[in-house]
Amino acid sequence: MTKAFGAVTEHTPLVALDIERREPGAHDVAIDIAYCGVCHSDLHQARGEWAGTLYPCVPGHEIVGRVSAVGSEVTAFKVGDTVGVGCMVDSCQHCSACDEGLEQYCDDGFIGTYNGATADAPGHTQGGYSQAIVVNDKFVLKVSHPAEQLAAVAPLLCAGITTWSPLRHWKVGPGQKVGVVGIGGLGHMGVKLAHALGAHVVAFTTSDSKREAALALGADEVVVSRNPDEMNAHANSFDFILNTVAASHDLDAFTALLKRDGTMTLVGVPERPHPSPNVGALIFRRRTIAGSLIGGIAETQEMLDFCAEKGIVADIELIDIHDINEAFDRMQRSDVKYRFVIDNATLNA
Amino acid sequence: MTKAFGAVTEHTPLVALDIERREPGAHDVAIDIAYCGVCHSDLHQARGEWAGTLYPCVPGHEIVGRVSAVGSEVTAFKVGDTVGVGCMVDSCQHCSACDEGLEQYCDDGFIGTYNGATADAPGHTQGGYSQAIVVNDKFVLKVSHPAEQLAAVAPLLCAGITTWSPLRHWKVGPGQKVGVVGIGGLGHMGVKLAHALGAHVVAFTTSDSKREAALALGADEVVVSRNPDEMNAHANSFDFILNTVAASHDLDAFTALLKRDGTMTLVGVPERPHPSPNVGALIFRRRTIAGSLIGGIAETQEMLDFCAEKGIVADIELIDIHDINEAFDRMQRSDVKYRFVIDNATLNA
Repeated sequence: MTKAFGAVTEHTPLVALDIERREPGAHDVAIDIAYCGVCHSDLHQARGEWAGTLYPCVPGHEIVGRVSAVGSEVTAFKVGDTVGVGCMVDSCQHCSACDEGLEQYCDDGFIGTYNGATADAPGHTQGGYSQAIVVNDKFVLKVSHPAEQLAAVAPLLCAGITTWSPLRHWKVGPGQKVGVVGIGGLGHMGVKLAHALGAHVVAFTTSDSKREAALALGADEVVVSRNPDEMNAHANSFDFILNTVAASHDLDAFTALLKRDGTMTLVGVPERPHPSPNVGALIFRRRTIAGSLIGGIAETQEMLDFCAEKGIVADIELIDIHDINEAFDRMQRSDVKYRFVIDNATLNA
Repeated sequence: MTKAFGAVTEHTPLVALDIERREPGAHDVAIDIAYCGVCHSDLHQARGEWAGTLYPCVPGHEIVGRVSAVGSEVTAFKVGDTVGVGCMVDSCQHCSACDEGLEQYCDDGFIGTYNGATADAPGHTQGGYSQAIVVNDKFVLKVSHPAEQLAAVAPLLCAGITTWSPLRHWKVGPGQKVGVVGIGGLGHMGVKLAHALGAHVVAFTTSDSKREAALALGADEVVVSRNPDEMNAHANSFDFILNTVAASHDLDAFTALLKRDGTMTLVGVPERPHPSPNVGALIFRRRTIAGSLIGGIAETQEMLDFCAEKGIVADIELIDIHDINEAFDRMQRSDVKYRFVIDNATLNA
């Protein structure tokens, strides 16, 4: 049995559980989990705030650890390797999206690291709030950061790739002015990555108190979005805006800041719809509003390698698994800079 | 004086007016107007349904005619040439948009063919519901269609370019599946142009009765958008959807038909906002919603040349200027296939 933490019902806090992991098959990699990031999705899924949570629900899809065993056909990994697992553990592997390395858009739907369909007990996947996991080798990433950074690497597997993928897809780079809306778990990675890609980065925050922190992350400028004068000063000037805010908000305030042919990409699904965007603001400057979902395995590896080379990790607060319910509450209040990461060794306590 | 038809107040029908045209300056082309298309914008502007209508308001921005005089510096046109004028008669000519031939996105705002700022009497531009117009040569288009098609060329200057520009910008061509939503003045041109560009074209209409007519325009398939089964059969299959419907409607029904990385481009500004689009539908397939405004002068010339070569014109109903108020009423009821065009010779009557 594998020790884990999960929710047994939507109304009860996460508790210690014993779960079962499959024996590694020919193409599987067994991983002893060292650290697991705490994503907002974990909270939503565990608390049944999204439709279809299967219980018991062991969340966690920002996983780093070390390989403990590999199947007979696995050539890319060996015992002792430092590896990561993100939001996906499988996909159809034969649709056009999978063929292009964009498994997150798999025609059949990817298999999530938790709450996904599986033949394994108990019939749905269980995530990284656990001592170990067994994953198809195609969905395992190599981690080349130094060991002492490992905890802070974990959030790259979701927050990192979710911001990296759109920055790369929309070709963010030097000479561009790029906005990042919302400086939380996703946004703080967006600022770091856009900065490292060479863009002039403007961080948008609702609070003046976050100004210094955003500059420290690598933002060239900080705009308090509640201040119309500050916003207006940036009208029609952005090549790209990465909007990480899932809460319903006025998109027009940011659309108006895009240049002609600029794009704002949303990476969060709001619980209640955003106010309907102003179509005129799109038409009169040929602006675009798009969406983007995590990222494919190949681009996740690309991002991890880029971050290792540039020394980029998340800003984290390491927690004991026994403090996970308090961490959920704090995360809900946005009281974290910028990501909680579980020290999975504390599952043994 | 030049005979014209226009609105004197927002509450009164269009009536005969005498207006003044400036003497052609060094860079001007004077045009005797032969035909002028009737665009929905004409109705909105004349009736004061958009903010800021300046009266008297002489509408009309789908103009074809013959050159009657040219200024001393004009080299591209000579007396007797068949020419067109669309939605714009001037722009700043030095911003990045103008430099790129995208005058419709001029940083200073382009000068509309009517209701735009001008030093000419009466202080605002007056459009093509008139015998003649004087226009800066940079905003005059060459028309190479045969003379007998001239009336049906007029709508290309707005309806044609408004659909051509996004089809070209989003690189519609052979091997692509392209939807056109709304088979009216704009949409019928969208179908013709997308078909001529080699795409597989699906026309979306709300009425089963328009099926045959849409096929006749060049659609490969017709989908009645009120029929969920017909719509579902096309889920996730479109590279591009050109949405010409300005009335508030459910965008999600069409977004769901886009492939991964597909784009739906809106060319109409709704009076009331569309229901807020489903962000999840964008995120889960990296779809895009964009806007597009008419088209630049260079691409308008490209479109006119393409249409002349392919024998493409609008489907029109030619009217006497004295029937313009009835035509407005019929247009408002969508009772036109697909564009009214004024025979400007009737202004002499």
